[in-house]
Amino acid sequence: MSAIGATRGENVTADGVIALLENGRILTTPVLRAAVSRLAPPMDTVASYHFGWIDQTGRPAVGDGGKAVRPALALLTAEAAGAPAETGIPGAVAVELVHNFSLLHDDLIDGDEQRRHRDTVWKVHGPAQAILVGDALFALANEVLLEQGTPEAGRATRRLTAATRKLIDGQAQDITFEHLERVTVQECLDMEGNKTGSLLACAASIGAVLGGASEADADALEEYGYHLGLAFQAVDDLLGIWGDPASTGKQTWSDLRQRKKSLPVVAALAAGGPASERLGELLAADAKNPENDAFNEEEFAMRAALIEEAGGREWTSQEARRQYATAVAALDKMDMPEEINRKLVGLADFVVVREK
Amino acid sequence: MSAIGATRGENVTADGVIALLENGRILTTPVLRAAVSRLAPPMDTVASYHFGWIDQTGRPAVGDGGKAVRPALALLTAEAAGAPAETGIPGAVAVELVHNFSLLHDDLIDGDEQRRHRDTVWKVHGPAQAILVGDALFALANEVLLEQGTPEAGRATRRLTAATRKLIDGQAQDITFEHLERVTVQECLDMEGNKTGSLLACAASIGAVLGGASEADADALEEYGYHLGLAFQAVDDLLGIWGDPASTGKQTWSDLRQRKKSLPVVAALAAGGPASERLGELLAADAKNPENDAFNEEEFAMRAALIEEAGGREWTSQEARRQYATAVAALDKMDMPEEINRKLVGLADFVVVREK
Repeated sequence: MSAIGATRGENVTADGVIALLENGRILTTPVLRAAVSRLAPPMDTVASYHFGWIDQTGRPAVGDGGKAVRPALALLTAEAAGAPAETGIPGAVAVELVHNFSLLHDDLIDGDEQRRHRDTVWKVHGPAQAILVGDALFALANEVLLEQGTPEAGRATRRLTAATRKLIDGQAQDITFEHLERVTVQECLDMEGNKTGSLLACAASIGAVLGGASEADADALEEYGYHLGLAFQAVDDLLGIWGDPASTGKQTWSDLRQRKKSLPVVAALAAGGPASERLGELLAADAKNPENDAFNEEEFAMRAALIEEAGGREWTSQEARRQYATAVAALDKMDMPEEINRKLVGLADFVVVREK
Repeated sequence: MSAIGATRGENVTADGVIALLENGRILTTPVLRAAVSRLAPPMDTVASYHFGWIDQTGRPAVGDGGKAVRPALALLTAEAAGAPAETGIPGAVAVELVHNFSLLHDDLIDGDEQRRHRDTVWKVHGPAQAILVGDALFALANEVLLEQGTPEAGRATRRLTAATRKLIDGQAQDITFEHLERVTVQECLDMEGNKTGSLLACAASIGAVLGGASEADADALEEYGYHLGLAFQAVDDLLGIWGDPASTGKQTWSDLRQRKKSLPVVAALAAGGPASERLGELLAADAKNPENDAFNEEEFAMRAALIEEAGGREWTSQEARRQYATAVAALDKMDMPEEINRKLVGLADFVVVREK
């Protein structure tokens, strides 16, 4: 299944994008590992476990480091600014450190026991380590950037700090939403923009900033990254309900089980009409029943069908296309080598046309 | 009681120091409040509760903001570098934000239910808010500095980041120590240097850095602040056992109740001799008994007497004097107005000669 159908697509092949991501990972990982090794024990071990480099017994492991879209963006946009890809490495590492700081804290806050098919840090090493190692990774992110000692590094840190504040705002909104009966589509988009858009925006500008780009060019790249993040999240929200468990590695109806107020749900509730109203009644009744372990597959399937009938699936799919188009259009605001522009469009294609 | 007896003392009177601290508070607090007001709801409210500006119901309160030594240091050392005191304000605010970020997380990690005679944030607003608001204050600290947009602000942020990493290292060590039967005096000093010395060192240099001081001068001020922090902590460790509850606001034998491996305890255990051995036996037996609610005043008094008999009280008192002397001597490495030097010595006098 392609979550939202065809995109521009004439640019870089999927294989080309996979090579881009792999290249970003190869350039970034050694520097990331060197940074993490600076942490005092036992925080270095806990962080290495989180990144998937060692297992629970401390033995080396081959981890699933995620899709690595952020590092690839940081390196590509250094090139967009006319600098070598390597100029973006400290930015790629800093963004990865902030991303993982937020994962450590969010997993604890949300009580999530699994990430990337492994037990989460708070579950293995306890809440204190999850808090402290998260804090340490955040501090390390600033350190890695600022030790460059250049004015560009100061500008990059400022943008990363602003993005991190938004990331934290997004998590705070997400927690607040859990206690609200209704969330508007705009509130949901704001939250997802903070939680996913802001750091992708930073990943897309930080390499360029380190490469000496103007503020206007950095802003254009942030706009690309922000809307790419919203497109990414819309696709994630679709996969969270209709994704194939064999591809996503999550349970069927994963987001429905967790009662997430994701875009398809919020859009379906806002749509009006019989399916929307019936869905609203069901979810309101669910909210009064704190456990849903008793639910069977049919009950989740029924909710998913109502969301689709009310138009939530189609709206979210269109929203992903709209955000994708806005992201790609923002690239034209910056004068960059044609080849880099094509790669950035290819990366956007990859993000929205994916099955996991 | 003066915890460690006479110091240089001929410089600035205690009233003069209190005026210095008050002046620092007056200049810093409005900027700190403006920074905190930028946080998205409900984090702004949670942070305002933490700082003592509002009570649990949201009504304005007159908080006990602590001694405010750090802001005073940041402003004074801007003047030491020949800049107006006001130049140090963003530094003072940033250091206060980092200090309070660490308090929010440490109170949660340590399970402390009270701070400054009020329920802690995690107790009132829950663990999620304690984590998120702590994270947000840390990010805000960098934001407040970097938005100055000067090279000096970049240098200041780099020093603050290094201090924050050490602060986190110190908390990690503190947690590790809880599970160790024995901690050496050097390990204890390292931990206290990280936990208390590093941020005081940063407070003492950040104003000067913002005021354009050389790296050598900033290093001299950091040395002053670091050893001032260790002197401060040694006095705190004395007050934690022998302080007057009416002055400290804590229970009698507070640190013994919490089984802290503080300097007097560690020094007494290292001293050898009959009292040291007897203390070691008692504390080893205590460690096997997780609850000490059954202990009466006499049992704590006996432990305190053994610590004193083994020389732990006297050693810690001398250690405070040694650290004080090292701190004050470091000031002579920097060429600064005589009046500012006297004020910094007066502040050191105040820190070591105190009853709470």
